[in-house]
Amino acid sequence: MAGSKFAYVRNFELPDPLLPGTFMVLRLDGHSFHRFSDVHGFAKPNDVRALKLLDHAATDLMDQYPDIVLGFGESDEFSFLLKKSASLYNRRHAKILSTLTSHFTASVTFRWSTYFPDTPLQYPPTFDGRIVLYPGIKEVRDYFSWRQADTHINNLHNTAFWALVQQGGESTSQAHSTLKGTQSKDKHELLFTRFGVNYNAVDERFRKGSVLVRQQEQQGSHPDSPSPEAKAKANASKPAVVILHCDIIKDEFWDSRPEILSG
Amino acid sequence: MAGSKFAYVRNFELPDPLLPGTFMVLRLDGHSFHRFSDVHGFAKPNDVRALKLLDHAATDLMDQYPDIVLGFGESDEFSFLLKKSASLYNRRHAKILSTLTSHFTASVTFRWSTYFPDTPLQYPPTFDGRIVLYPGIKEVRDYFSWRQADTHINNLHNTAFWALVQQGGESTSQAHSTLKGTQSKDKHELLFTRFGVNYNAVDERFRKGSVLVRQQEQQGSHPDSPSPEAKAKANASKPAVVILHCDIIKDEFWDSRPEILSG
Amino acid sequence: MAGSKFAYVRNFELPDPLLPGTFMVLRLDGHSFHRFSDVHGFAKPNDVRALKLLDHAATDLMDQYPDIVLGFGESDEFSFLLKKSASLYNRRHAKILSTLTSHFTASVTFRWSTYFPDTPLQYPPTFDGRIVLYPGIKEVRDYFSWRQADTHINNLHNTAFWALVQQGGESTSQAHSTLKGTQSKDKHELLFTRFGVNYNAVDERFRKGSVLVRQQEQQGSHPDSPSPEAKAKANASKPAVVILHCDIIKDEFWDSRPEILSG
Amino acid sequence: MAGSKFAYVRNFELPDPLLPGTFMVLRLDGHSFHRFSDVHGFAKPNDVRALKLLDHAATDLMDQYPDIVLGFGESDEFSFLLKKSASLYNRRHAKILSTLTSHFTASVTFRWSTYFPDTPLQYPPTFDGRIVLYPGIKEVRDYFSWRQADTHINNLHNTAFWALVQQGGESTSQAHSTLKGTQSKDKHELLFTRFGVNYNAVDERFRKGSVLVRQQEQQGSHPDSPSPEAKAKANASKPAVVILHCDIIKDEFWDSRPEILSG
Repeated sequence: MAGSKFAYVRNFELPDPLLPGTFMVLRLDGHSFHRFSDVHGFAKPNDVRALKLLDHAATDLMDQYPDIVLGFGESDEFSFLLKKSASLYNRRHAKILSTLTSHFTASVTFRWSTYFPDTPLQYPPTFDGRIVLYPGIKEVRDYFSWRQADTHINNLHNTAFWALVQQGGESTSQAHSTLKGTQSKDKHELLFTRFGVNYNAVDERFRKGSVLVRQQEQQGSHPDSPSPEAKAKANASKPAVVILHCDIIKDEFWDSRPEILSG
Repeated sequence: MAGSKFAYVRNFELPDPLLPGTFMVLRLDGHSFHRFSDVHGFAKPNDVRALKLLDHAATDLMDQYPDIVLGFGESDEFSFLLKKSASLYNRRHAKILSTLTSHFTASVTFRWSTYFPDTPLQYPPTFDGRIVLYPGIKEVRDYFSWRQADTHINNLHNTAFWALVQQGGESTSQAHSTLKGTQSKDKHELLFTRFGVNYNAVDERFRKGSVLVRQQEQQGSHPDSPSPEAKAKANASKPAVVILHCDIIKDEFWDSRPEILSG
Repeated sequence: MAGSKFAYVRNFELPDPLLPGTFMVLRLDGHSFHRFSDVHGFAKPNDVRALKLLDHAATDLMDQYPDIVLGFGESDEFSFLLKKSASLYNRRHAKILSTLTSHFTASVTFRWSTYFPDTPLQYPPTFDGRIVLYPGIKEVRDYFSWRQADTHINNLHNTAFWALVQQGGESTSQAHSTLKGTQSKDKHELLFTRFGVNYNAVDERFRKGSVLVRQQEQQGSHPDSPSPEAKAKANASKPAVVILHCDIIKDEFWDSRPEILSG
Repeated sequence: MAGSKFAYVRNFELPDPLLPGTFMVLRLDGHSFHRFSDVHGFAKPNDVRALKLLDHAATDLMDQYPDIVLGFGESDEFSFLLKKSASLYNRRHAKILSTLTSHFTASVTFRWSTYFPDTPLQYPPTFDGRIVLYPGIKEVRDYFSWRQADTHINNLHNTAFWALVQQGGESTSQAHSTLKGTQSKDKHELLFTRFGVNYNAVDERFRKGSVLVRQQEQQGSHPDSPSPEAKAKANASKPAVVILHCDIIKDEFWDSRPEILSG
């Protein structure tokens, strides 16, 4: 058969299975998003349209891949946890990394006009991805705590920074100087005394990021279901992905969703 | 600083540099493209709109990443050769794989309406990717020969198959039976005697695939350039990516472009 | 400086850290030991001199590397568990694998004459090694259960086999036939009825393998210590490696030594 | 079968093939050899017994593994080149690394008394190993040039240093001071003017290291072979490993042995 003398080149494709029995975390980061957000006129410090767009792409990904049991998004990044027993694509590293990155990227461009109806896309946003393996539940929880703590720190800083610029009339370099060396409580104070902003009342989406979990629909959530069959179907349906903006550092989130870490 | 007690989770991100001094080949494959092409009514055996769409996305990728010195596309797959000395992202495996896959994917969705103006995208196409390292120029040439030989085999088969179905009135299972066990020359013969098709006159795009190379613009290509400065600028401009449909198995292609393999 | 123009070749030495937070198991296997045991006249089915020799080499290794918390030996193989938090050689794969394999190998040859005083070494025994990562304690316990179950199966078979040959006068191929298809209880029965051997009374070393753990010396183990200082020193001394031939499949072994898996 | 419920632990043994079409270089380094050489009273700056011992172990290794086409030793380290097409152990990384390290280590201890008949081995020497892949012949040559340039630099320094100490009556810290900042030519000068040593006349073994290659026995080397059959056999016999102390930086060595790099 023609071509068979070349087929040996497949021998250079080496196996790349990820260690079984570990949790995979896929983290996607926007590539050159500073420029992208400037070109497309993103609101500062947070553009709710962009955040909802990424949430939607993340939901698409979780709809497609049942092995993903948790998503967490902030700014231009999203992390996804795959359950410990995931056997997706036989745990082949490149296959999982590339396919999931591709799926998320495609959704973002596909859904753009839904969230930015008046802003034509100049060029499509891209993402880099990495998969990190965590052997135990402590590390998994600490990973997500790390990301949510980062969300808090960045958002508090950005909220103060843009208040100084947008409401305080400072230049960006002045605002940098003003914030230099300040602690969290200083920023809270500054926001409150100078701009009347109670940071703790800022939209939880901005302060906590987006937490995507699967949630079985409640019985009774379809009160008008006309028949037992329809109810049975609703109950049997696979859990829907829901978007929360809640704390994931404390125990409560995890204690009430033991299936996430149960493997 | 808040969050610092969680930062140890970064220690689980292990380094993944690709061996220096080797050629990287990135191959992207459409994910579930059989279904995708059905849903979007692709022409059989080849949809020139889809092929040109992928060519455009490949061109976008090569415009963005100068380390890519060659692209080869057929059907729903594309292979890219990075020059041997490429130091892109410090040769980090996951970074390169995910970023380039993301970029190509994003371009395909972004450019969809240009090539399918009358076909709304039902859902965005996705791709998986892999990077294979080849240590020498023989293996690189054999890799691309393997893909182009595959193009030929597949296209000849598909051309005969769809002629039997579309012009010969056979069912798809009849067409499978008709072709079972046939050799290349049998398929040429069948196409010619039953359908008057000279396979060698079929569009080279279908028979050879798409070959993307960088080509310095010719002097004189801007005959009306009004000034020496403009000419100098044109000559100094970076080579443009051009799309060919030529043989890449024989020596001529490579002999006339020594820069591809020179590393 | 001379040589500096060649130093770039070090760039081809890629990092190879093992995933943190996992248990490493190093398994060493004798290379071509069938031939080696023939050449050196090993007793069948077990040569106690050889087993003790490997135990000694394993003890040497554990004396040298405190990160090893458990050893298990049978026949010509030995497995070593490193504690979960081990940071030996920064967890570099090749460094750990090669150094520990080398150390064990060296000890075996070095100690040969102690255990085989009348058998000159014709050529030195060699070992291959591998490191396997286990993310959790269940997998670690199952790994060691797997090896000890293997010890039992092999030793029961070999004991019956060599009884047939050495005492029953069967040829080796006859003995193979006799045992073909037999279950464990058949082999127990055969040993008892034909050779008067109660398998459960066979030396535990052969039935259970060798289990190496660190054991704090008992207070009172030096009853004649003349001074409080000497006692304090004895108590502070690092635990000695002791060799047991006990069950490691059931819970008791692990429950009474929580430090092994505590990481 | 007993034990089968534990056998899943084998799934954690991941494949680790080395990239085909590349040259493997295995480098072995003595572990804590400073201490080892002190304990065993090695001569300074070079102990010819120790060097010959390592040469012998390296010869043993090359006798056992025909895929090794070149060895280079200096001080307490040895590098081995495997031919490009080597398929040893299916190119499994851990298997090759551990087995070859073990073999070399075993030989060193086994041969100790041949080279140190009057020096009992206090404890056996151990080695760490690493395998580095080189894609092309330039990198392979530069690797060995790097090692031989290192040999030269180290030996010149050590020769001058120990001359100052042993003949010049300097303390080791005085000798360090004396040599600080000196260039190669300064050391040559010092050796000649103060100690009458022409460095270029120093034993090539010390200046060049040991180069192990396979060499077909010369026709005529068995002048008294009584029969054509015997001669044929001699010619057909596999090449013997020979030890040279020659330059491997310049072209001549490689040009006259094209088989080393021909793959």
